[in-house]
Amino acid sequence: MSRKIDRPGLTTAPASTRDRLVAAGIELFQRQGMAATGIKQILAMADARFSSLYHHFPGGKDELAAEVIRTAGVGYQRHVEQVWDQAAGTVASMSAVFEGAAAVLELSDYADVCPVGTVAMEVASTNEPLRLATADVYRSWLDAAQARFSAAGLDTREARQLSLTVVALLEGAFVVCRACRSTEPMLAAGQMAARLVNEALRK
Amino acid sequence: MSRKIDRPGLTTAPASTRDRLVAAGIELFQRQGMAATGIKQILAMADARFSSLYHHFPGGKDELAAEVIRTAGVGYQRHVEQVWDQAAGTVASMSAVFEGAAAVLELSDYADVCPVGTVAMEVASTNEPLRLATADVYRSWLDAAQARFSAAGLDTREARQLSLTVVALLEGAFVVCRACRSTEPMLAAGQMAARLVNEALRK
Repeated sequence: MSRKIDRPGLTTAPASTRDRLVAAGIELFQRQGMAATGIKQILAMADARFSSLYHHFPGGKDELAAEVIRTAGVGYQRHVEQVWDQAAGTVASMSAVFEGAAAVLELSDYADVCPVGTVAMEVASTNEPLRLATADVYRSWLDAAQARFSAAGLDTREARQLSLTVVALLEGAFVVCRACRSTEPMLAAGQMAARLVNEALRK
Repeated sequence: MSRKIDRPGLTTAPASTRDRLVAAGIELFQRQGMAATGIKQILAMADARFSSLYHHFPGGKDELAAEVIRTAGVGYQRHVEQVWDQAAGTVASMSAVFEGAAAVLELSDYADVCPVGTVAMEVASTNEPLRLATADVYRSWLDAAQARFSAAGLDTREARQLSLTVVALLEGAFVVCRACRSTEPMLAAGQMAARLVNEALRK
C-alpha cells in the first residue's frame, strides 16, 4: 500500500491491532467493496492473526464491517465538517467540500472515497444489521448538514431538503467520478450545490 | 423471485438462455452487487448450465458482467428517457424521473435500482474492462440528458453541468434511499433538480 496522501478518517499509523484491522477494512472496502474483501486479505494488510480478529470482533467479518462503516462515517463526517466550517460562509462551503473531494479523488487515482456508499449498496437488501450501520452514518451526515443550513438562516424544511440533496450529490458524484476517472461530475455537483444554497439564502 | 412489478431494463420472460443469464445477472447485481454474486447463483436463477454460460460468454463472469452493465444501462436509460419525454416540459421531467424512481424503490422494497452504480464502485479500482463498461453507461446517460437540456434552450455548458448534476443526484439518492429505506432523499433530489432546471431556463 504505497499511497501516502492524507486520507479522511484514517490515522496514518494505527497503533493497536484493533485499529489496524479497522483501517485495513476501510482501505479495502474503499477500493473493492465488502464482498470482494476476504478475511485473509484484511488480516494480511493489518498484520494480524485470525485469533486477534475474533478477539476484537467476536462476530467476525460482519462485526468488523459494522465498525469499519461507523469509523469511516465518523472520520469522513469530521473531515467534511472541518472543510465546511473553515470556508467563508455557507455558499463557499459547498465549493470547498466538493472541490476538496475532487482533489482527493485525483490525488488518490480515484481510489479514496468514503467506503460507506459502496457497502450501503452491497448490503441494502441482504444484510440488515449492516444496512442499519450505513443508515446511521447517513442520518448523522444529514443531521450535521441540516444543522449548518439552519444556522445559516434557512427554515427547517429547506435545510432538510438541501442536506438530502448535498449528501446525495456527493455520494452520486463519487460513483460517476470513479467510473469515468474524471473530477468533472464532482466539480459540477459542487457548483450546482453552491447555486442552490445561494438561491435559498437570498429568499 | 416473487416480485412482480415492472422493472426497467428487464423483459418479463427472457426467451433465450443468453437473455436469462443477463436478466439473472441484473437482478442479482441489483440486490447484492457483483462480488457477492457467484456463478452458481446466476446459473440457478437463469436455469442454465455452466456450458451455456461459457458458450455465450467465453470470458466467464467478467464477460457476462460487462453485458449485464451494458444491458442494464441501456434499459434504464430507455426507461428514464420515456418518463422524461412524456412529462410536460423539462422542469416537470425532473419531478417525473425522480418521483418515478422513488415509486419503484418503494414498490420493490428498496431492491430495484439500476445495478450500474453498485458495480461501478466495486470495480472502479480493480477491474479496468468493467470500469470502462460502467463509464460507457454514464457517458451515454450524460449525453442523453445534455441533449435534452440543450433542446430546451440551455447553452452547452449549462446543459452539461445540469446533466452531470442530475445523474449524480439520481445515483446518490439511490444509495441514501436504500440505506435509509426511505424515498425522502429521492423526492428531495427531484425537487432540487426541478428548481435548478427552472432557474436555468428562466435566465
